[in-house]
Amino acid sequence: MKLDPGSEFGRIERLRAAFAADAPGVVVGIGDDAALLDPGAGPLLVWTVDEQVQNTHFDLGWLTLDDVAYRGYMAAASDLAAMGASPWTALASWVIPSSFDEAAFDALARGAAQAAAEVGAPIVGGNLAKGERLSLGTTLLGRTTRPLRRDGAKAGDLLMVAGPLGLAALGLRALQVGEFAKELEPALAAWRRPRARMGEGKLAGAVASAAIDISDGLGQDLAHLAQASGVQLVVEEAALRAHGGEDLARGAQRLGLEAMDLALAGGEDYALVVTHGAGLPGFTVLGHVRECRSVEDPSVILRSPTGQERPAPTGFDHFYQRPRSTARKVSSTP
Amino acid sequence: MKLDPGSEFGRIERLRAAFAADAPGVVVGIGDDAALLDPGAGPLLVWTVDEQVQNTHFDLGWLTLDDVAYRGYMAAASDLAAMGASPWTALASWVIPSSFDEAAFDALARGAAQAAAEVGAPIVGGNLAKGERLSLGTTLLGRTTRPLRRDGAKAGDLLMVAGPLGLAALGLRALQVGEFAKELEPALAAWRRPRARMGEGKLAGAVASAAIDISDGLGQDLAHLAQASGVQLVVEEAALRAHGGEDLARGAQRLGLEAMDLALAGGEDYALVVTHGAGLPGFTVLGHVRECRSVEDPSVILRSPTGQERPAPTGFDHFYQRPRSTARKVSSTP
Repeated sequence: MKLDPGSEFGRIERLRAAFAADAPGVVVGIGDDAALLDPGAGPLLVWTVDEQVQNTHFDLGWLTLDDVAYRGYMAAASDLAAMGASPWTALASWVIPSSFDEAAFDALARGAAQAAAEVGAPIVGGNLAKGERLSLGTTLLGRTTRPLRRDGAKAGDLLMVAGPLGLAALGLRALQVGEFAKELEPALAAWRRPRARMGEGKLAGAVASAAIDISDGLGQDLAHLAQASGVQLVVEEAALRAHGGEDLARGAQRLGLEAMDLALAGGEDYALVVTHGAGLPGFTVLGHVRECRSVEDPSVILRSPTGQERPAPTGFDHFYQRPRSTARKVSSTP
Repeated sequence: MKLDPGSEFGRIERLRAAFAADAPGVVVGIGDDAALLDPGAGPLLVWTVDEQVQNTHFDLGWLTLDDVAYRGYMAAASDLAAMGASPWTALASWVIPSSFDEAAFDALARGAAQAAAEVGAPIVGGNLAKGERLSLGTTLLGRTTRPLRRDGAKAGDLLMVAGPLGLAALGLRALQVGEFAKELEPALAAWRRPRARMGEGKLAGAVASAAIDISDGLGQDLAHLAQASGVQLVVEEAALRAHGGEDLARGAQRLGLEAMDLALAGGEDYALVVTHGAGLPGFTVLGHVRECRSVEDPSVILRSPTGQERPAPTGFDHFYQRPRSTARKVSSTP
């Protein structure tokens, strides 16, 4: 059996079995956006790692080295936002081809330092190794007294999002087909410089019932949240379309794509979805949480302006290929 | 300027400048074997990351996939031992070629799980990504109330080691030249299955004045410790030779190498060197610490049985090539 998204979730389960161990202070192990540790006193620790691999997650022709390091750091930081954690510190583990000169190295350092400064978690160590392909690992520690999980959404809660949906996927698609029209610039910027939603995560961390960051696509990640919480999530198409706005609509039109498809399937914006009983500043309400009447119920529903309901698509391969589809968090719940 | 050991230390300094930031609770950042964090209550956290990269640190023809994952974990764990920390938990960030089937994946999981069980720090999460070359990142958290540093060695202390010196380097050399005679078996095992000195690190952590793990070679790593502490380290040749024992002597002879060269330059045994006023169980005394009379003094001295002294070699490239020479801790002090 070869590696594919389907088998990877199986691999996560096999790792969970292989690594099964009760260690003192492990609150959440393999099974959420990040590991959650209790040091015994003070806030809980939230711990995550992400890896950006050349020719898997990016092509060096598509972005600057500053961008590569910036987005690598942000991908890891987004997991902390999804747990409602305050970022603390980071380690960088970089595999760098011999062909990279000092200017290239400095560009990586600059991009990572900028992301670290924006997120507020300085890089305090790491590892440098040589390799045939560029690969940037970022591991982050955050702290929280009230961790957000995927399993707390309750019927009656509002479903809200902070950050763009589908814009980065549109930018990636533009890069893949080599289309750089002016109306695609916001999309290109969204893919090259995604921003983890740290402030919104902290705000939601104090009150929200559940959260997840959108790294695999709204449809798929909402399904994870719905399944973990045992609820059904209803997304209003009109709200989703309005949230996408002109940048998504015009860019999608330019490439002959559907804005709604991008909004449902695009993941690398690292938007933050939370559920809570009332609106929150910085978040757009997309829909609401309702009871799941039977296990056969679809977990995520799209509702049209006329009230018609249909299951939300959870895949993306039907309309665009993206390298990110080959990467999975060990901590993801299938 | 291309990547080489010389330029890499320069890179570490440049990272230190690029990442310079005072974060609350950062006791040690870039500049030792691992980062040291103060959560505000309870023990300090010791945090490290290591990366093992195919064709840089290992050749897939030289060891099983179990071994690759085992030694990757141990390389990271050794940094905790060097800080005298108790291992707590780990994250695994794996880049895996598409050609790897499920049996290959399970072998990696098995090797990592075995190392984690031996070290006592379970893997509680991580990241799986696809890539062209196998690359295994391990990040570990440990805890300690009395961290060992490189800068605490005092004149009059004994210089002691736990674990083999040069045996893994001999094993790597045997693999490089394709020589598998019976007298090389201990060396092959030492390279394929190094053991981080967790127990010895914890023991020393309670009392020792300084420590370092030997990842780049005894001569080079002792120089780091001597320079950080502002002392001179005297190594007795006879003690070093006796410590190497028959396994090193016979294996070296088989390959036409000098046991002493291997003991001074070999790093991947992950032996633990500490300084302390008295002997410690599990450690072999190699020499002692004395005052550094002037800045021109060599930092590490080899003393012959007749009392003749000479500076210890700090390099290794003169007698054998090893892929590890291309990797450096960001946290290493030059």
